[in-house]
Amino acid sequence: MKLTRRYRFSASHRLATPALSEEENRQLYGKCNNPFGHGHDYVLDVTVEGAPDKNGLVVERHALDQVVRSRVLDQLDHRNLNVDVPAMAKVVPTTENLASAIRTSLERDWPLAARLSRVRISETDRNIFELEGSSR
Amino acid sequence: MKLTRRYRFSASHRLATPALSEEENRQLYGKCNNPFGHGHDYVLDVTVEGAPDKNGLVVERHALDQVVRSRVLDQLDHRNLNVDVPAMAKVVPTTENLASAIRTSLERDWPLAARLSRVRISETDRNIFELEGSSR
Amino acid sequence: MKLTRRYRFSASHRLATPALSEEENRQLYGKCNNPFGHGHDYVLDVTVEGAPDKNGLVVERHALDQVVRSRVLDQLDHRNLNVDVPAMAKVVPTTENLASAIRTSLERDWPLAARLSRVRISETDRNIFELEGSSR
Amino acid sequence: MKLTRRYRFSASHRLATPALSEEENRQLYGKCNNPFGHGHDYVLDVTVEGAPDKNGLVVERHALDQVVRSRVLDQLDHRNLNVDVPAMAKVVPTTENLASAIRTSLERDWPLAARLSRVRISETDRNIFELEGSSR
Amino acid sequence: MKLTRRYRFSASHRLATPALSEEENRQLYGKCNNPFGHGHDYVLDVTVEGAPDKNGLVVERHALDQVVRSRVLDQLDHRNLNVDVPAMAKVVPTTENLASAIRTSLERDWPLAARLSRVRISETDRNIFELEGSSR
Amino acid sequence: MKLTRRYRFSASHRLATPALSEEENRQLYGKCNNPFGHGHDYVLDVTVEGAPDKNGLVVERHALDQVVRSRVLDQLDHRNLNVDVPAMAKVVPTTENLASAIRTSLERDWPLAARLSRVRISETDRNIFELEGSSR
Repeated sequence: MKLTRRYRFSASHRLATPALSEEENRQLYGKCNNPFGHGHDYVLDVTVEGAPDKNGLVVERHALDQVVRSRVLDQLDHRNLNVDVPAMAKVVPTTENLASAIRTSLERDWPLAARLSRVRISETDRNIFELEGSSR
Repeated sequence: MKLTRRYRFSASHRLATPALSEEENRQLYGKCNNPFGHGHDYVLDVTVEGAPDKNGLVVERHALDQVVRSRVLDQLDHRNLNVDVPAMAKVVPTTENLASAIRTSLERDWPLAARLSRVRISETDRNIFELEGSSR
Repeated sequence: MKLTRRYRFSASHRLATPALSEEENRQLYGKCNNPFGHGHDYVLDVTVEGAPDKNGLVVERHALDQVVRSRVLDQLDHRNLNVDVPAMAKVVPTTENLASAIRTSLERDWPLAARLSRVRISETDRNIFELEGSSR
Repeated sequence: MKLTRRYRFSASHRLATPALSEEENRQLYGKCNNPFGHGHDYVLDVTVEGAPDKNGLVVERHALDQVVRSRVLDQLDHRNLNVDVPAMAKVVPTTENLASAIRTSLERDWPLAARLSRVRISETDRNIFELEGSSR
Repeated sequence: MKLTRRYRFSASHRLATPALSEEENRQLYGKCNNPFGHGHDYVLDVTVEGAPDKNGLVVERHALDQVVRSRVLDQLDHRNLNVDVPAMAKVVPTTENLASAIRTSLERDWPLAARLSRVRISETDRNIFELEGSSR
Repeated sequence: MKLTRRYRFSASHRLATPALSEEENRQLYGKCNNPFGHGHDYVLDVTVEGAPDKNGLVVERHALDQVVRSRVLDQLDHRNLNVDVPAMAKVVPTTENLASAIRTSLERDWPLAARLSRVRISETDRNIFELEGSSR
């Protein structure tokens, strides 16, 4: 059985890569390349999978919340992804790279019995990114 | 091709297990252990899978509705999951156990040509449970 | 300027009035009269009105949250409206009566500079109740 | 990594098949068989899958939009599916057949590096159809 | 106290007025002028207003549903607004004119104690039309 | 009759006022005071009011879109409200002040026959701000 729990955070970013010229960056990233950045209300869905235990729970809600809050939300909520977040320091802060960084943070020494099954993040309701829960 | 159809029902429940002390129940289930119960507006998504027939339909909508209504909605809607629902009589009425009971009710002598592919139930929009359509 | 802030709580209830016979209660309230109750995920929108202060705020978010939490959410969330809530003790727990009780709790000694403009509560997304902020 | 992008279009249709009598058509398709048609606001979710490139993108948004717009939206938006759409000319315009036609249009000479992973279309929020991205 | 109840129906239409040339119609109504029509999933919110009665109800849900179903939904659901609906026979079937026709149908000999306060109709979630409940 | 049309834009901001100390700013604005800013997906609902013209329209959609796009969206979408937007240059970029600036931009030399009735902006679905259409 899979349980998906939903979290939210708000952050800002600016898309640009030093490998490209100013003009090429503008072409590639469009308005997301505007110099002073912009922001989004991200929706994060974390899915865990396992059999319900004898108390009828796949996972204790507070235990999962604690993992997601300490590893993800506390690092990202109300932050600037270009300058505030060590895990994003060396990559363009696209939502693709953000999704990868979130999965990496979650799967390292994953502490729960239910396995991490999927990470899904929405930038807006028009752009939704999904990664299977483990890259290994 | 998969077709997912959405249904809704409202029910109440209280989470507690006789295997634990009062204090342990309160620790484990939090506010869901409050003595007189509380309730939710559950959303149930039933997915069937198959090839469209010569009339262009994976399943006749009314046939699927009839199965879901008689086996699930009529048993659960506006009910108390702790005392009103035989299928839940021996388990803690977590949404995990509710999802399992719904799938069991649906898959027994499943009467449609399209196969039952998935049962998904949302307690609130923050907690969504999914089961593949058949436990066999 | 009006600011509406959204809150949520889950509760259970059973609709019945001693003034009517069993049969009349069933006729009037339908499935909501089922003997062991059912429940909902209520959405509560509280609107305050005023001019933004010199810091650009109609109301400090935390101050409003504190009023709503202590007076409303703490009394209602994960409760049974028939037996757990003193403010509902003498009335049928319809959402109409619940909306009135919420407004009464909020407007008594309202402690904020921004005035209470509207209370709106949704039982489901099909039934939404609105009251102007003050009955006086 | 999967990226799902959401599109919308409005169209009308009437469900009827010449293989059935008038009465049988009415039985099978119900109100959808009403003679002068009706309509929907369809939601189309197109999912592509691949590794992010060196610029952090699974797919350039504009390139995907261009494919979906020219092959799907321009053919369907504000159209009558029974008479306006060559790809639907020989089939009953059920949403099952519409989903198949959309996938066929997209997968033929698919021009992007990210692979077409899934096509999902909602007729209303109660009826959602999904097809894996390639029929091959 | 106001109670808003939500209903849905699907219909098709084509926008064109005989007072204008073909070219002018195309200019004015854009894609909505496409010759064979298109359609929408309309959302209708009907608001009534009054004091709760001794049973705690502003209006009996079934009584309101019965009025809306017989006067509005049965006339419009799965219909073509240009040819199927007498109340729309002499006007361009814009959602403005549809909203007016719905209010007219509802307010004539309004049979409930709670007064008709507002009619709101959404063509899509981008276009929402509101009329106070009575034109008198 | 009122017509509300919905628009969206994404922007970033940081809340701080020079009138307060660093510590007071942190107390007052909380996480919104984080030094490098964060962002939101704002939803803007613009309501106009008038009688439908002989073509059945309260307002031509494209004319309204053109006003909102040129005066509001082009200034704000994918921008940093602290440094990119002249209309916000002298105020703390709270959503209250943003709502006022948007209304001011719209109402100055309002060019449409339908009158500007209301401006509503959502920062997230928990915080919604409303202003009557004209401050005069």
